[in-house]
This record gives sequence, C-alpha cells and structure tokens, in this order.
Amino acid sequence: MANYFSSNFTLGILGGGQLGKMMLYETRKFDITTHVIDPSAEAPSRISCDYFEQGDLMDFDTVYNFGKNVDVLTFEIEGVNIEALAKLESEGKKVYPSSETLKNIQDKGVQKNFYKLHKIPTAPFLVFKTKDDLTEAIVRKELTLPFVWKSCTGGYDGNGVSVIRTEEDIIPLAEGSCIAEKLIPFKNELAVIVVRNPSGEVKTYPVVEMEFHPEANQVEYVICPARIDDKVAKNARDIAVKVSEAFKHVGLLAVEMFQTEDDEIIVNEVAPRPHNSGHYSIEGSYTNQFEQQIRAILDLPLGNTDSKVGGIMVNLVGAEGHTGEVVYENIEKIMAMQGVTPHIYGKKQTRPFRKMGHVTIVNEDIDKAREIAEEVKNNIKVISK
Amino acid sequence: MANYFSSNFTLGILGGGQLGKMMLYETRKFDITTHVIDPSAEAPSRISCDYFEQGDLMDFDTVYNFGKNVDVLTFEIEGVNIEALAKLESEGKKVYPSSETLKNIQDKGVQKNFYKLHKIPTAPFLVFKTKDDLTEAIVRKELTLPFVWKSCTGGYDGNGVSVIRTEEDIIPLAEGSCIAEKLIPFKNELAVIVVRNPSGEVKTYPVVEMEFHPEANQVEYVICPARIDDKVAKNARDIAVKVSEAFKHVGLLAVEMFQTEDDEIIVNEVAPRPHNSGHYSIEGSYTNQFEQQIRAILDLPLGNTDSKVGGIMVNLVGAEGHTGEVVYENIEKIMAMQGVTPHIYGKKQTRPFRKMGHVTIVNEDIDKAREIAEEVKNNIKVISK
Repeated sequence: MANYFSSNFTLGILGGGQLGKMMLYETRKFDITTHVIDPSAEAPSRISCDYFEQGDLMDFDTVYNFGKNVDVLTFEIEGVNIEALAKLESEGKKVYPSSETLKNIQDKGVQKNFYKLHKIPTAPFLVFKTKDDLTEAIVRKELTLPFVWKSCTGGYDGNGVSVIRTEEDIIPLAEGSCIAEKLIPFKNELAVIVVRNPSGEVKTYPVVEMEFHPEANQVEYVICPARIDDKVAKNARDIAVKVSEAFKHVGLLAVEMFQTEDDEIIVNEVAPRPHNSGHYSIEGSYTNQFEQQIRAILDLPLGNTDSKVGGIMVNLVGAEGHTGEVVYENIEKIMAMQGVTPHIYGKKQTRPFRKMGHVTIVNEDIDKAREIAEEVKNNIKVISK
Repeated sequence: MANYFSSNFTLGILGGGQLGKMMLYETRKFDITTHVIDPSAEAPSRISCDYFEQGDLMDFDTVYNFGKNVDVLTFEIEGVNIEALAKLESEGKKVYPSSETLKNIQDKGVQKNFYKLHKIPTAPFLVFKTKDDLTEAIVRKELTLPFVWKSCTGGYDGNGVSVIRTEEDIIPLAEGSCIAEKLIPFKNELAVIVVRNPSGEVKTYPVVEMEFHPEANQVEYVICPARIDDKVAKNARDIAVKVSEAFKHVGLLAVEMFQTEDDEIIVNEVAPRPHNSGHYSIEGSYTNQFEQQIRAILDLPLGNTDSKVGGIMVNLVGAEGHTGEVVYENIEKIMAMQGVTPHIYGKKQTRPFRKMGHVTIVNEDIDKAREIAEEVKNNIKVISK
C-alpha cells in the first residue's frame, strides 16, 4: 500500500468548485498532498490545496499535463477532457473514476443507452442528434407530447432539462443532441450514493428523499433517511449497487431515482462524484461522502455509511432580484437553531438561483429536523449588499 | 452584526499548529477570511488560511503589526506577547480571549493565585521565583516531599511537570519560577470545555475522562462521556462555568480537573483555546470545539454541545527509537475498524513522543468504542521510514 499520509504522494483534482473544496477538508485531515485545477482564479478550492492551477478542463493538453504530475487523478465535475484521461491511463496513471466510466456517463444519450444495454430500469426514451431531428420525430408522430427533454451534454443543477407539454415549449430548447424521455408520474424522487474502491469493496449510503415545494417545482429539502418503506429502500439500494457494478465504477456514484406510483424504482441519472444529495453526510453520517471519496479512490478501507442522526439539507441559492456582493441575511438567526450548520461555498458574487452554499439540520428525530429545516428556509436569504 | 461570511472581515490567529489547522476547516466552511502567523514555515496551518506569515509570537512588534491588519484576533497557543494584545485592545481591536484573561493563565503561579482569590477549589500550592527559592524552602521544611513541581511558564503536553518524591528528583528541574503543589490522590482526571461569547451566552461540553495506562503513567484514552456519576459530572460542569466566569473568559476554556478519592472536584489547570480533550467533538458532537470557538469569538450564537454518539480520542505520538520522515504504520488497518477516523497534523518529521496526530473512535455504545480504541492503540505505530 502506498504511503499517502504526510508523504510525497499527490492527488490531483480536476475542478475546484464547492465539491472540491469540501473534499479538501478531508485531504487536509489526512495530510494528503493535493493539486487542483479550475478555470476560475477565484475557485472555492483555490486555497487549502498544495498547488492551484488555472486552466480549461476540456482542453486535452491542460488536463494531460496536469495529470502527469500527480499520482492519482480524480474529478469533481463531469465536464473534463476524457481523451486526456484515457491517455494518462494508457501510460499507467491511476484515474478514478476511469475514463471508460465517465464516457458512459458524460453524454446523457450514451448514459440512457447504457441502462438499456444493462437492463437497468429507466424511463423509455429516444435519443436525437439535433433539435431538428427531435421536431421531425414529433411531426412524424414517433414522439408524442408530453415528454421530458434533456440536453445530452452540459446540463447542471436542473439546467438542460425541460418538461415539454405543448409545441410552444419546444421553441426555447437548445440546439444539439438531446433525449426525449417518457413523463412518468412518480411519488418520490430518491437518491442513493454507492461507493466502491479498486479492491472491490462496495457500500451504499441510506436512501435520501428530495422533498419538493408544493407549488414551485423545486427541491426544497434533501432528507436522510427517506420516509419510505423499508422494502422500497432496500430495492433502491440494490438497484444503485447494480448500476455501480455495471459502470465498473470506482469512487462515489450518486444514483438519482424515481419511486413510481406503483413503487417501482427507475433510474433517472447518475453523477460519478460527491453529490448535493450527500451533503447531509458531513454532519449526519459516520463517514461523510468527501472522506469516503478519498478512501475509495486511494483504495483505503471504506468507512461506515450509516447515519449517527437524521439529516436534512437545504440549498442556499441566490434570491431573485439580487445580483452583486453576497450577504447571508439572518444567518445568525439560523445558527441559533438546534443542530443547524451553514456551509458557505465562498462565491463572493450572488445572482438569482446561483448555488452559494447549503445548510444542514441534524436531529435524532427526523420530524423535528424537518420542522427546523422549514424555519431555516423561512429565515435565511441570500441577497446582495 | 458584522458580516463575516464571504466578506472583507478578517480573523487573525496567532499560532499555526494543529489546533489552528483544525480551526481553519471551520473558517473555510463559513468562508471567513483568515490571517495566520507562526514561527515555523512548515506550520500545519500554512495552507487553508488566506495569508500566512512566519514570525515570533513572543515579539511585541511582530504580534502588534500582525494584529493591526485583522478585525478580530485570537490565538491557538498561550505563548504569545501579552503586551502587544493589550496595546491592540487599547486601540479598540477585539482580542478574544482578552489579554487580561491570558495574563491570569499564561503564568501558572498567577493562575494558581487566581483560583485562591476566586475561591475555586484547587490543590494547595506554593509559588517560587527561582529554583534556589524552592530548594531553600525544602531545607527550611516549609515544603515537604512528595509534591508536584510545575514550571510557571512554557509547560506544554506534560513538559514542565514532575512529581518530586526524592531530593534527587529535584536535580534535573529547570531554573526559573515554579510552583510546588500538594500531591493529591485522585480517582479520575477529568476535563470540561466551557464556551462563552461576548454577549454572555455560556455552554459546557459533557465531562470527558482521561484513562491512564495502568503502568506507564500516560493518558491513553480521552473518553466522552466520562464514566462517572451524574452528580459528579454536574458538579464538574458547574465548577468549570465558575472558572470561566471568574476569568471573564470569551471563547473556549478547557478546564482540567481531578476527581478526588472522596468525589471532590479540584481544578488542575486551564487552557484558553481548543484543547486535546475536545478533539473527540469533531466526530462526536453536534458542534465541534473548533466551530464553537469561531462562533464564540465572533459573537455568533453558540452551537449545541451535546454528543451525537460516544467518542474516544487516542493521541498519535512518535514511537520511541524513531526519528525522521514519518510513516503511519497500519493506518489502513485502523481505518477498516468501525467508526475510526485518523487526523494527521501534517508534521513531516517524527521523533519520540512528538504529537503527530490523533484518532477518534465513535460509537453509540461507549464500551464498544473503548474496545475498538484498544485495537487502534495496539495496531497503529508512528515510525520513521
């Protein structure tokens, strides 16, 4: 086993956003040397790493040269140059997750076909190379409304997804490859984080539930554990393991799923990295997802994925009508509430709907946590000066 | 209330050791700008702060000039220039804990007299300006063996403390001011961390217990909660609050205490900062001591001091006979044990008894945690290459 702790071993991380930043708490805890690269000079990970580089993650030479100087390479964002990863692997560099896994995930059309090939339950879909192909399919009645449109590439945080109910909804859609998915009514949106190390040890975190705002169709709370039947939860965790195995995935894989009206579990999409749905784990779990990611990609033993206490996560997004230097209004009010921890990502400028941080609420009693979460939501505001 | 989060507000920290390093996880979490100063260019806090300076913490000008450029000044080590703190305070700078508090703590003779003045139970003692004065007192029979000798200044991690049983034990003692304390037999060594913010909110953490190795008179495990009667625990927490109030302390105050054979609590000494006895809180508590320190000195609401689960802390100290580049032997073995988290401080060189890190073991069942802690202790070794 390599000596990772206070040694010359170097972990490289492509991407320096909030996920990378939270990963760095763990590399500091273990005193693992890190190199980070991000397109922004003001990336949240700019400090706490041992070496920071500004660069384009989609550029072959940039990623290749960055990867050459580290011992293990990982990423905290899917939008990275896969060819560079493959070249590094061919030269013997350890890249986790692998370029092969990422290739099957990065493009949503490829990802959906992968599920079909591996008999993983997912909503029926069609893939289109261009927006023209999509509209033509509608004209030919090969595709009928309503459906869910998803851009094959570049989608993030709900961008690149639209529910198409009328022909007018098609007008603003982006050009480029996309998928059209059958709109399946569901009871719950769930997620399971699976983790695997190169030695083959596999663990799943408990199922989390996304609770939506009753009117605005937006996730308000991520709740762990999900308030669902044990049988459904077991099925969700089993399917998540199956997905992870199919991808031969190493590291964290967040599997987003729907629980249909008749309690079937279908896979929506995956993210091969730490995930918003696992943020609760920093305060809630025996091993938080960021430490777990480090353990996994360095082939260390995986930590306990159980929860110490119930956890709820609320995203802190920029309020509408506010653009400029950020102020977290009432943050001291929510910090006075029981079991409440704000996480501020470090973006100096807010703008409407920008993800600026999150708040975790932990409590032995998940219903009590849910009450406090609502109080948090009603008080905190991300505004500009 | 000042805007601390992603703002121009700057917190200054005197000292960049492991305590500062762990405090920086929390300033990063809240995105609070930090300046750190330490005599060593390789200080564990050298990264993760926004600005690092190498400098002598006992030098007036160095501390004064460093403090001038921050909004709130704190320290993670007692050995800092108090006159510089006082001057900064006189100019309106917020310094927490205050120079006045530190003055009553930094010198152990002053600290003991402070307890006497404030009727805080402590072992009977005599203060001596020099070693000559001490030996003279023995000759004059004003002081009788056995007693506990403590250097008034510069003691750290058990350095500067000796049990004097024979006249020969006196020979190796350092020159300089010291105290001689009555040797009181005790059942348990306990500690309580008290926290207070400038607004006067006060909380105590649960009592922790130091379990000693049966032969080598060394702390092996710090256990939270202490395995003592509720009545004794309540008394210990009450006395700790009284101590903190007497010092008009702001921030964390770790109060080390003895539980005597007849269940009296007497105060041994205090540390006005995060403390080894509170390290378990990172994994064990709703609010860890480092986050709590940030909340306190910024006059934010204090967090819940209760434990989520039982916690045990084992120090990682350099093994005897090993000096040089550090290797954490069997670290992957202990990471495979349930609820085990190593913390590696980032010192590249080990030497016998150097504090290199710590390991936390958490479990709902404290007896189970204690079993695992013993396994950890029996496996991990801090050696050189």
